[in-house]
Amino acid sequence: MPRDLAALRRRFETELFDRVLPFWERHSPDRVHGGYYNCLDRDGTVYSPSKHVWLQGRQAWMFAKLYRTVEARPAWLAMARSGADFLRHHAMRDDGRVYFQLAADGRPQGLQRKIFSECFYAMALAEVGRASDDAAMVREAEAVLERLFVWAEDWSHVGRPSYDGAEPLAMLAVPMILLNLVEEVGGTDDGPMGWRRYEAHVDGLLDRVMRHVHTDRRLVFEHVRPDGSLALDTPEGRLLNPGHAIEAGWFIRHWAERLGRADLVHTADALVGWSHDAGWDAEHGGLLYFLDSEGFSPVQLEWPMKLWWPHCEALYAHLRMALKSDAAATRDAAWARFDATFDYTFAHFPDPDHGEWYGYLDREGRVTHRFKGGPYKGCFHVPRALWLCWRLLGEHTGSAA
Amino acid sequence: MPRDLAALRRRFETELFDRVLPFWERHSPDRVHGGYYNCLDRDGTVYSPSKHVWLQGRQAWMFAKLYRTVEARPAWLAMARSGADFLRHHAMRDDGRVYFQLAADGRPQGLQRKIFSECFYAMALAEVGRASDDAAMVREAEAVLERLFVWAEDWSHVGRPSYDGAEPLAMLAVPMILLNLVEEVGGTDDGPMGWRRYEAHVDGLLDRVMRHVHTDRRLVFEHVRPDGSLALDTPEGRLLNPGHAIEAGWFIRHWAERLGRADLVHTADALVGWSHDAGWDAEHGGLLYFLDSEGFSPVQLEWPMKLWWPHCEALYAHLRMALKSDAAATRDAAWARFDATFDYTFAHFPDPDHGEWYGYLDREGRVTHRFKGGPYKGCFHVPRALWLCWRLLGEHTGSAA
Repeated sequence: MPRDLAALRRRFETELFDRVLPFWERHSPDRVHGGYYNCLDRDGTVYSPSKHVWLQGRQAWMFAKLYRTVEARPAWLAMARSGADFLRHHAMRDDGRVYFQLAADGRPQGLQRKIFSECFYAMALAEVGRASDDAAMVREAEAVLERLFVWAEDWSHVGRPSYDGAEPLAMLAVPMILLNLVEEVGGTDDGPMGWRRYEAHVDGLLDRVMRHVHTDRRLVFEHVRPDGSLALDTPEGRLLNPGHAIEAGWFIRHWAERLGRADLVHTADALVGWSHDAGWDAEHGGLLYFLDSEGFSPVQLEWPMKLWWPHCEALYAHLRMALKSDAAATRDAAWARFDATFDYTFAHFPDPDHGEWYGYLDREGRVTHRFKGGPYKGCFHVPRALWLCWRLLGEHTGSAA
Repeated sequence: MPRDLAALRRRFETELFDRVLPFWERHSPDRVHGGYYNCLDRDGTVYSPSKHVWLQGRQAWMFAKLYRTVEARPAWLAMARSGADFLRHHAMRDDGRVYFQLAADGRPQGLQRKIFSECFYAMALAEVGRASDDAAMVREAEAVLERLFVWAEDWSHVGRPSYDGAEPLAMLAVPMILLNLVEEVGGTDDGPMGWRRYEAHVDGLLDRVMRHVHTDRRLVFEHVRPDGSLALDTPEGRLLNPGHAIEAGWFIRHWAERLGRADLVHTADALVGWSHDAGWDAEHGGLLYFLDSEGFSPVQLEWPMKLWWPHCEALYAHLRMALKSDAAATRDAAWARFDATFDYTFAHFPDPDHGEWYGYLDREGRVTHRFKGGPYKGCFHVPRALWLCWRLLGEHTGSAA
C-alpha cells in the first residue's frame, strides 16, 4: 500500500503551526528586555526568569528560518530579531566568550567551559542576519565560526583545564555541532563567497566525526581517543547516546548529499540504523537516553529516560533516509523505524491541552517533568524536526515551501 | 508492645558486618597503588579505574572509625591507612586544593570548584590519624579545616567565579558538611585542646544552617539568600532535598545534644519530621530525591528517583529521635517514620547475592543502576548508617561498642 505522504505532511503541519509555534509565540517573548523566557511551565507560566543562551540562539534561529523558508510573516522576523538583538547586547563577553545563562535583563549568571553557547550564538546571527538583510550580523556569525574552528581544537581557549591523569578523549559533539553550524553559517550559496569557503573544514569535520563511528561494532561512541581508537576501560569511553548519533547521522547525510559522497550517505544511513536499534527499548518502546557499549550500567542517573529530542532527531533522520535512499531494503527499514518512532512520539510527547511537547518521560513512558521549556529545552528540537519533516515531505509531494 | 531493640540491633549488625563491609574489603583495595577502586559493579568487578576523592576519604574514615569504635582489627586499620596514604600522596595540589578525581595511580583527572573534596580529605585524615596514633596526620586535618573555614566564606578561593546577574545564594551543604567535619576533626575530647576550640565556629555554623529552616513553611530550603530569606522566583531557590535536610537534622541534633541546647534539639527533630513527610512518596513509598517548594517540576532529571543515601540518613535520624526524644508523641512519630523507612529500605536496596546495596531506583522502586559503587556512591552512607544505628541501639540495650 503506498503511503499517503500528503496526509503525513498535514500531520506535521498541524502540529508545527497550530500546536507548537503558538505556544512559544504566546508565552515566551519578554516584551520588556527582549529575548525569550525559556523556562515555561506546562501552561506557559514562567517559572524562572533566567534566559539560557543556547535556547535564545536556537529560538531566534528557528523563527528566522521559518520567515525565510515558510512565509515572510513580520511577527516571525520580529521574534527572531528580538532574540538576536538580546544576544548581541548581552551574551558575549569582551574576550569573545558567550555566557551560558543570563538574567532576564541580560546580566550574566553563568559561563560554561565549553564552546556550545558560542555555536548557538553564531547559528542565530547567521540566520537572523540573512532574514533581516543585515550583512553585518552575518559577518559577525562568520567571525564567531572562524574563532570556533580554533577553539574547538583546544578547549584551554575556553578555560577548560587539562589534567595529567586524564586521557584526552575526543567528543562527538564537537565536530558534529560544527558540521551543522557550517551548514547554517555557510548558507546555500554555491559561489566562491558561499559555503565552499568552508569545504576544507567540512572535510576535516567529517573525518573527525567518522572516528566515532565503529562499523565493526555497529556503534557510535560519544568519546574516542583522538586517533579514533576506543577507550573501553572507562564509562566515558563506553558511552553511547543513540539520539545524538542519529542526529549526527542526518548532519552527515546533509553534507554527503551536497558533496555527492555516496560512501558517506551509506555510512550515515547505516549508523542511524544501528543507533536506533541499539537505543530502542524493546520492552517499553522509545529511545533510551544513554547506554554503555559493554553492558555496564551507565553512570548517568537519567540513562533510562525517554527524552523528546532523540525522538525528534530520529523522525527526521528516518524520514529522510526512507524518502531518499536508493536501496529498497534501506528504505523499508527506515520506514519501519520511522513508524515506530512516530507512533511512540505522538502517543507520548505532545500536550493536547496547552500545546508544545513534554520533554521528559520515565522508561515506561510517563511524563516526569511537566514543563515545556527548561534550561535545556526550548523552541528548537520540536519545531525544527516538524519543519524539516514537513519541508522534506513537501519536496516529495510537490507542495510549496 | 515493646520493641525488640536487641533484635533490631542484630539486623543492623548482620547487614553491616556480614553483607556490606565484606563487599568493600573483598573488591575495593588497590593492592598496587593503594587506595580503593570505588567504581564497582554489582558483583564487585571494577568498571572504571578512576578513584573519586570524596569516596577515598570517606572509606578511609569509615574503616578507621570501625577500628576505633568497634574492634581494633589490624586489617581495618591497614585499609584505612591505605586510603589516607594514597590521599596524602596524590590528592592535594600545592595550593591546598584537593582534586575530585584521580587515576588509579594517583595522577589527577579532575578538580571541582567546590570545597567538598577538601572536606572528605580532612575527615579521613582526622580519623585515620587518631586510629593510627599519627599526631601529624591529625594536625594536617586540623589545618585543612582551618583553611576550609576561610574558603567556605568565599568560593572565589576555590576558583568559583561570580556573575553580576546571579543572586548569591547560600547553600545548605556548606555549613552542614562543616558541622559534621568539626564533629569529626574536633573529636570527643572535652578539654581545651579538644572540640571546644571550635565552639565559636559551631555556633556560627548552626546559625547559618538555621537560615535554611523555614518553620512557617515547615520546609528546609537548599538555597536561601545570605540573610535567610527565600528566593522563590527561581528553581534553585525553591529546591528541596528531603534526604539532605534529614541528614542536616541529625548533624544538628548531635551538636544540640552535646551543647545542651534543648531548643535546637526540638528544631532538629521538627525539621526531620517535615522533611520526611514532604519527601515521602505516598503512592510508591520511599523518599523522593528533589522537590520544588511551590509545586513546579524540579529541573533535575533525577528528581523522582529513590536514592540509597536519603534512606540511610533517615534510618539514623528517625531512630535517634525515637530513642532520645523526651516527648512521647515525637517518639511515636519518629518510630512510625523509622518503620516506613526501614521497611522500604530493606525491601529495595540490599543485594542478597553479592552484598552491599544498590544505589539508584526509579520512582516505582525498580533498580535502575546495578553498580554498588560509582562516582558518588562508595563505602560510606550504607556502612555509616548501619554503624550509627547499631551503636545507638547498643547504648539503649546495654550492649558493648
